[in-house]
Amino acid sequence: MRFSPLLDELIKSLQVLPGVGPKSAQRMAFALLERQRAGGRKLSHVLEQALDNIGHCRQCRTFTEEDICAICASPKRALSGQLCVVESPADVVAIEQTGQYQGRYFVLMGHLSPLDGVGPEDLGLDVLENWLDAESFDELILATNPTVEGEATAYFIADIARRHGVSVSRIAHGVPIGGELELVDGNTLSHSFMGRKAFSE
Amino acid sequence: MRFSPLLDELIKSLQVLPGVGPKSAQRMAFALLERQRAGGRKLSHVLEQALDNIGHCRQCRTFTEEDICAICASPKRALSGQLCVVESPADVVAIEQTGQYQGRYFVLMGHLSPLDGVGPEDLGLDVLENWLDAESFDELILATNPTVEGEATAYFIADIARRHGVSVSRIAHGVPIGGELELVDGNTLSHSFMGRKAFSE
Repeated sequence: MRFSPLLDELIKSLQVLPGVGPKSAQRMAFALLERQRAGGRKLSHVLEQALDNIGHCRQCRTFTEEDICAICASPKRALSGQLCVVESPADVVAIEQTGQYQGRYFVLMGHLSPLDGVGPEDLGLDVLENWLDAESFDELILATNPTVEGEATAYFIADIARRHGVSVSRIAHGVPIGGELELVDGNTLSHSFMGRKAFSE
Repeated sequence: MRFSPLLDELIKSLQVLPGVGPKSAQRMAFALLERQRAGGRKLSHVLEQALDNIGHCRQCRTFTEEDICAICASPKRALSGQLCVVESPADVVAIEQTGQYQGRYFVLMGHLSPLDGVGPEDLGLDVLENWLDAESFDELILATNPTVEGEATAYFIADIARRHGVSVSRIAHGVPIGGELELVDGNTLSHSFMGRKAFSE
């Protein structure tokens, strides 16, 4: 015997969370039962609400409980004429936190990965094409991850954008600010040489 | 803006789990919404069920949805005449997994900690006294953690047990099996010398 059936089921259910194995699930279950009953009840309720109501923005595919997300709905954002393509909603948050970008986003919810059976239709590229048809953007910024899959996805989307007459850019890759050259991997360093710019005083 | 209000609330609610900060909560929320909707729904349901139904065993105070837990209800366990006092239900599981012990448990759900306002009544020591009054045990085994608070708690309970004429033992402390002497801390090593036994061939 381990625990009572219901406690066992709770510990098993908690393992659906990423990075949570049997030991952490047990610790979480005990913490909820011992000290966090109100918080646990709230979590159960909000989780159900979220799963019932949160879907994808009809335009940019990010998570939202509305039909159109707040960024897509903002008229100020539409003025920029820029569209930034990212892999996940977390990337949108990261870019928003820089305060640098004022345009709109398109969230792929993944990247091309033929081995895992992820093709263009899974990334909503038909939705993107319709959007590029319907609206004329000045610039499409590719901000997919600098991984093999992210690069392949960027190439694929660049093709689509060019077919629609939109100019395409890719975010810069290079040595991170605050990083030390000797600790940076060779691939990044060679990107950083290839992407060098005239030094402005 | 960060996320939509409901997604924000989900991320905040997930932080009630121990060891989960804003970043992991965000990762969990996205994972649930992207890939684990069924599992998430199950979690929400089981969590509510567990919080509604799981309480403490009337006799030993461990978590159970019954009035009396499976171990306390077992007649075979009652025959042993042994009672093992532990700090948490996780300790019960750890001891059960050894298969070494066939008696019953008393779960303190914590340890004496005057600074945090945890006194004897919070550990259900009145429940324990009633149990020792009602039943005559041969042995009470103290298996609280070998920490300052755990030791203090053990001394306190040993007093109670002696007043009820029950003989008291403490689990052995020493060098862990498979451990190397040079890596063991001095305190443990000195315990292991004080607790030495005649070598049996």
